[in-house]
Amino acid sequence: MKSIYFFDRNQTEGHQGLIKELGGKGAYLAQMSALGIPVPPGFTITTLECLKFLQTNSLSEDLKLEIKKNIQKIETAVGRVLGDCQTPLLLSVRSGASVSMPGMMETILNLGLNDETVQGLAQITNNPRFAYDSYRRFLQMYGHVVLNIESGDFEKVLQTKKKKYDVQLDSQLSEDILKEIIEEFNKIILEQAGEPVPHDVWAQLDAAIGAVFESWNLNRAAVYRNIHGISHELGTACTIQSMVFGNMGNDCATGVAFTRNPSTGVKELYGEFLQNAQGEDVVAGVRIPSAILDMKDIFPQAYGALERVAFQLEKHFRDVQDLEFTIQNNSLYLLQTRSAKRSARALLKTSVDMACESLIEKKEAVMRVKPSSMDHLLHPTIDPVNSTNALTKGLAASPGAVSGMIALSCERALSWAAEGKDCILLRHETSPEDIEGMNASCGILTACGGMTSHAAVVTRGMGKPCIVGCSNLEIHEKDGFVLVDKKVLREGEQITIDGGSGEVYEGRIPTIASTPQPEFFKLLSWADDIRKLKVRANADTPADARRARELGAQRIGLCRTEHMFFEKARIRSVRHMILSHTSAERKEALSKILPYQKEDFIGVFQTMEGLPVTVRLLDPPLHEFLPKEKQDIENLSHDFNVTVCEIERRIANLHEFNPMLGHRGCRLGVTYPEIYDVQVQALMEAACIVKKDGKEVKPEIMIPLVSNAKEFEILEKRIRSLVEKIQKEYGLKFSYLIGTMIELPRAALTAGAIAQKADFFSFGTNDLTQTTYGISRDDGSVFLKHYVDQKIFKNDPFVSIDVEGVGKLVQVATKEGRAANSKLKVGVCGEHGGDPDSIQFFHVLGLDYVSCSPYRVPVARLACAHAVLLSHP
Amino acid sequence: MKSIYFFDRNQTEGHQGLIKELGGKGAYLAQMSALGIPVPPGFTITTLECLKFLQTNSLSEDLKLEIKKNIQKIETAVGRVLGDCQTPLLLSVRSGASVSMPGMMETILNLGLNDETVQGLAQITNNPRFAYDSYRRFLQMYGHVVLNIESGDFEKVLQTKKKKYDVQLDSQLSEDILKEIIEEFNKIILEQAGEPVPHDVWAQLDAAIGAVFESWNLNRAAVYRNIHGISHELGTACTIQSMVFGNMGNDCATGVAFTRNPSTGVKELYGEFLQNAQGEDVVAGVRIPSAILDMKDIFPQAYGALERVAFQLEKHFRDVQDLEFTIQNNSLYLLQTRSAKRSARALLKTSVDMACESLIEKKEAVMRVKPSSMDHLLHPTIDPVNSTNALTKGLAASPGAVSGMIALSCERALSWAAEGKDCILLRHETSPEDIEGMNASCGILTACGGMTSHAAVVTRGMGKPCIVGCSNLEIHEKDGFVLVDKKVLREGEQITIDGGSGEVYEGRIPTIASTPQPEFFKLLSWADDIRKLKVRANADTPADARRARELGAQRIGLCRTEHMFFEKARIRSVRHMILSHTSAERKEALSKILPYQKEDFIGVFQTMEGLPVTVRLLDPPLHEFLPKEKQDIENLSHDFNVTVCEIERRIANLHEFNPMLGHRGCRLGVTYPEIYDVQVQALMEAACIVKKDGKEVKPEIMIPLVSNAKEFEILEKRIRSLVEKIQKEYGLKFSYLIGTMIELPRAALTAGAIAQKADFFSFGTNDLTQTTYGISRDDGSVFLKHYVDQKIFKNDPFVSIDVEGVGKLVQVATKEGRAANSKLKVGVCGEHGGDPDSIQFFHVLGLDYVSCSPYRVPVARLACAHAVLLSHP
Repeated sequence: MKSIYFFDRNQTEGHQGLIKELGGKGAYLAQMSALGIPVPPGFTITTLECLKFLQTNSLSEDLKLEIKKNIQKIETAVGRVLGDCQTPLLLSVRSGASVSMPGMMETILNLGLNDETVQGLAQITNNPRFAYDSYRRFLQMYGHVVLNIESGDFEKVLQTKKKKYDVQLDSQLSEDILKEIIEEFNKIILEQAGEPVPHDVWAQLDAAIGAVFESWNLNRAAVYRNIHGISHELGTACTIQSMVFGNMGNDCATGVAFTRNPSTGVKELYGEFLQNAQGEDVVAGVRIPSAILDMKDIFPQAYGALERVAFQLEKHFRDVQDLEFTIQNNSLYLLQTRSAKRSARALLKTSVDMACESLIEKKEAVMRVKPSSMDHLLHPTIDPVNSTNALTKGLAASPGAVSGMIALSCERALSWAAEGKDCILLRHETSPEDIEGMNASCGILTACGGMTSHAAVVTRGMGKPCIVGCSNLEIHEKDGFVLVDKKVLREGEQITIDGGSGEVYEGRIPTIASTPQPEFFKLLSWADDIRKLKVRANADTPADARRARELGAQRIGLCRTEHMFFEKARIRSVRHMILSHTSAERKEALSKILPYQKEDFIGVFQTMEGLPVTVRLLDPPLHEFLPKEKQDIENLSHDFNVTVCEIERRIANLHEFNPMLGHRGCRLGVTYPEIYDVQVQALMEAACIVKKDGKEVKPEIMIPLVSNAKEFEILEKRIRSLVEKIQKEYGLKFSYLIGTMIELPRAALTAGAIAQKADFFSFGTNDLTQTTYGISRDDGSVFLKHYVDQKIFKNDPFVSIDVEGVGKLVQVATKEGRAANSKLKVGVCGEHGGDPDSIQFFHVLGLDYVSCSPYRVPVARLACAHAVLLSHP
Repeated sequence: MKSIYFFDRNQTEGHQGLIKELGGKGAYLAQMSALGIPVPPGFTITTLECLKFLQTNSLSEDLKLEIKKNIQKIETAVGRVLGDCQTPLLLSVRSGASVSMPGMMETILNLGLNDETVQGLAQITNNPRFAYDSYRRFLQMYGHVVLNIESGDFEKVLQTKKKKYDVQLDSQLSEDILKEIIEEFNKIILEQAGEPVPHDVWAQLDAAIGAVFESWNLNRAAVYRNIHGISHELGTACTIQSMVFGNMGNDCATGVAFTRNPSTGVKELYGEFLQNAQGEDVVAGVRIPSAILDMKDIFPQAYGALERVAFQLEKHFRDVQDLEFTIQNNSLYLLQTRSAKRSARALLKTSVDMACESLIEKKEAVMRVKPSSMDHLLHPTIDPVNSTNALTKGLAASPGAVSGMIALSCERALSWAAEGKDCILLRHETSPEDIEGMNASCGILTACGGMTSHAAVVTRGMGKPCIVGCSNLEIHEKDGFVLVDKKVLREGEQITIDGGSGEVYEGRIPTIASTPQPEFFKLLSWADDIRKLKVRANADTPADARRARELGAQRIGLCRTEHMFFEKARIRSVRHMILSHTSAERKEALSKILPYQKEDFIGVFQTMEGLPVTVRLLDPPLHEFLPKEKQDIENLSHDFNVTVCEIERRIANLHEFNPMLGHRGCRLGVTYPEIYDVQVQALMEAACIVKKDGKEVKPEIMIPLVSNAKEFEILEKRIRSLVEKIQKEYGLKFSYLIGTMIELPRAALTAGAIAQKADFFSFGTNDLTQTTYGISRDDGSVFLKHYVDQKIFKNDPFVSIDVEGVGKLVQVATKEGRAANSKLKVGVCGEHGGDPDSIQFFHVLGLDYVSCSPYRVPVARLACAHAVLLSHP
């Protein structure tokens, strides 16, 4: 087992296939080197060595020997020697795991400096300021990473000196000031660590490698792995490279570039650079860098080289690349390349574009886009008709508009999120320590940093709205307020941010869904060619139905009818119906609702233009329609000339201890047949009217909460005879279906009997999960979070279907239902119909369709295609 | 197909095996005749002929011919001729189905009389009074049964005449008075029916047979069949027999006898007779008859014959017989025999006695007693320490003490019962028309009638308390009150009756369980030898546990711990615990409850003396322990120095929409581990203390509401380590089990995984039914009754297990649980554990035990034996 892989212009031992051993950074550096791209020579110690180190807590003698040999190779390649006083070699020591964990682990730059070698560096570069700037950087990093001293303590010294000597930028610090700073840094280190930074550069190297390995177990890294579901057993590789310097003068720079725009996906070199600076300055977001286009003027030769490298790497790796580079004396050096994290919009556009450019296959493009991101692409933006002026504006780092309470610390964001409150994290800048707080917030707003700052990169990955570099924000964390120009915003107040425009608003601002880009529909059409499951939408109104069709729904899988009872003009009659004593009174009251409902159904049928529409008959318990407030009860009493006392008695009579398990669904249809009669009448008369108008109609009537075949039979028979009667009245004859929700365990267990009379099954997986698990969705949140955090439940079963329990019932019911009735159509209309993981399961079961809310339809279409490709790659 | 079966001393065509064809009455008459027992000659028309008649509404010519032939056989046997003026033959025409429906169908006696034959009868009997008494009886019955005239109209004439001539008894009516009565009867008939009773005796016979057949479809008969689950397709047979007369003078009598006492089961000839009367007088309860023992003096010869017949019949039929007999001129004739309906107590005693007498096998005795009747035998009686004096006393017709509102009509009883109110039906006497009202009442009290009156017989069958012949009751139905001596009781007032003692009390009187008779335990010990399922009891306290052991429970299958939190001294600490903010505060509050709980467990373990005790950890949601009343909230606020507002906020926070599916069961144990810790500590310390005292202990810890193997694993591990720690502290080592309730569909579906760590499964079939069906037991009653009435559900699934749904889950979980863990013990602790039908299912599944409430333990023991005998008869 090789423990070290060397790379330079002449000899490269690694390649991109060794990601597991060399980490992403090490493997890609080796590959770039092999491709002839200018990379400073170096070598990578494998992840296996990291795991060994973490067990023994020391570097083995064998490894040390190997390191020494490879350092000598670097020395040969660059003509400098580690620790040599005349021509000292300086090294970078970097972490890099096989899965990208940006900024989560440690790095030490400028290693190899001490009080003697720094003088040699000053001499050979003829740039003492650069040498001492590098030295203070080394002390600062080594002190923090190896000796665990707070970064803030060093920063404080820097700020004091800048103030003292009236200097703005780090690069303006003179050699003498830097020497003063170095003296104070050494004092801090001696005081706090009880020992100085070793003079012996080999000791420096061993300690730095150890610290990089140990950084695998940093808390923030572990949290990141938990959030992203990354194994804790991988370890990090460690890459040791000859330093190149972006901070050696104005012919030097450091920067980050993307081969395509990571926010929009446009095919253009995109990025930022800082002249006369080292790489960490860009990523940390402490100085606002320049746009990469400006490099064309300042570094024309290096810019040309960067363009060529970008084209070469994208073609080689068949994906958008995120590059780190340094310009030393006008020469370009690549320090890193990796697949670029992109906004959902950019990932979509680049995937579609690359397929159109024949760089990748269409199915590859389909697989690259996460189904859930299709939802983000429909993320709301600020309603343009809103006349409010923005309070301020920053950089639009991650799209989407969101409102929430101002949280000035991660602790605050976490505690509010735990209480279920939406909040927006406002920080000067973010750092890897903030990862949990960012995860808990709905959006991020920072005063500092650029488009590739920590906040921008991380939020794009999370699909969360983010604005960075909002420079006129003045944050007073301790005192709990923010100044925007002269306006005071207190912590806890509501603001709205639009990560698509960079605008910040006071209060909660109305948002609207964005209009998706053209690539959105192109990718979905490719997905449609692949998928087997049909996608229907849950839509209750013509407006919903329209949106659903725009987003590609092929049918309506669930049209709830509750809203048809709740609307203002009807609720009076509904209440009268509920308070009726006899079937005749109930019919009388219901007859008043009939014309309204008919209009509703006409609207839905017209919108769907002959596509099937599945209508669910009334489901909620009747008490949901009764008034709760004293005043409303009094009005009702007055309306119907019934005493308040009598109404209260009826309300009390209808009260249920567990309404979820109460007198609802088809139990209403069985006990009060008039209710379903009126619904069926409204539905079928509407269908007849639309049909007479010359449009096709395909009504499907769905009976909810069936637990027993007999229950279904009774209702099916009654409905069928009513439907036939109405069709006769209108002189029409067209086909329609009668089916049922499978949403109780007993329905699933007796599906064979139910299927004998049913045309279709639609799994109501929300209720099926509630009853199978015995967890009320309304009440379960108290312990569900705990259960998911503690991994007692793999997932929240209301988000992704519980395969072992609820899934088993879906499987059994599908099998027995189809065995009893080969024509049975089977689908899902619970929330899981729009969840990618659940869709994968439904595809494997071979269901006919999933139905979900209109905005989830694109998610479902893509997830259905993924399901096919994952099953038969 | 033979349509008629004849029987007389010389020739008998039928036998007891032809019950289906001849009905019980016809088949047994034939059998008695074959055995040489004196039976008046006659024949039976089959039930098939009845069904034909009900279709065509007429007697076929073939049948009429057959009837004629058989009448001639009777004429030959008795030497009289039907319709002959000198020696007229008189006939009885009786109904009789294959299943006993006492009093539900019609009978006509004395058929063959008209204005001429009555004179012949007077002459040959030399007893004109008898002849005219028979004639008026015939007119009365024919008028009512064939011509549908109200019986009351005839009764009114009788009463008027008795008053007019100052006569007390029917038998005191003289020939002349009878002639007057006959004249008035004829007038009533002519007026109301528009036609006289036919003079032609053959026409009488055809009409009477038709009326008997038609009486199969009388409303009361149909209701009776519905209540008892008897098919409506059976039809009744019709038996036509030569009359014998109990009303021919003082050497005549009619009576009813049981071969053993039907109320107590004591082996003695038991019954009643009326001198100079016809059979209907006894059954109708209009005269109070004499005890059968008195017959010894009056009819010594007939009494001796009756004793011999009784012995012979019991031996032949291997069961207690209920006989109808007539004495005509000191000669005994048997008119009917059938298996005697007995009180539960009598059925038990006679079955055990007959097995001891080797008349039947032990397993036959076991099968004869309905398991549910074991519960009736433990029916409460009036608490003897109660000092209240009885208001009055009647005949103790059916045992059990019960309280309820006075209902003076069946309508009232039905409407109150529908409202869920207990009521006691008070009537002068009952008749078959009252069957629905009696069924709806908790108990029956009549002013008239004897131990074999309608009320007495029917209530014994129903297992309902009943007192008859309470002669100082004066019932004013119309005015809504009852006079007892001079005391007024209004309809709706509460009374208590004790059907075991015959005593009636004002108001609701405390009752206590009766001490079961010795045969109770003997039969159960036989059942124990047969059954395979173990029987455990649900018992929460030492008192429950004691009762459970007395009734034969082998273990405690469910010891709930909720009550240990509710008791007065503890609820304060419990509430403090619930209002705690931290785990430390919760522990502090719980530590105050610990010593009390330990005492409780010590009591239970001591009572059970080494028998296993399954303790269920806390199950209900915490909000159940919080106060609901304003005053209690204020007290709590004062107690803990927390504002009322804060307490109300906490109560509101803990409120659940569907508590059945909420934060309860092991979800409490997972989120607040301190609670289960304290319970386990109390339980195990108690076990250690009892064990140190020298008694064995077998604790089994049951975790409720598990839905997931991981949930169980976490708790099991925590409990096991706590148990081991406590055993160590006490220096003891004894075995214990940790298992779980299976009461959620998901637990059943993933039983294989759960069983890997569980020592036992106990199916909580109450909750499992609620979640599988999606029906809350608290809320479902609104539609469940409708569903059961409409046969949408075969049974109330909370009474008898739903085999197809819930049962399937029990089956799957048992199979997969045992496959994963061959040592797994599997039982049931829901209500179904005490339901005979459900027990049959559990036996077939091969479970290890059922657990039920202590009073159901005898039911379960017997039902478990029945299950074995039904499976392998």
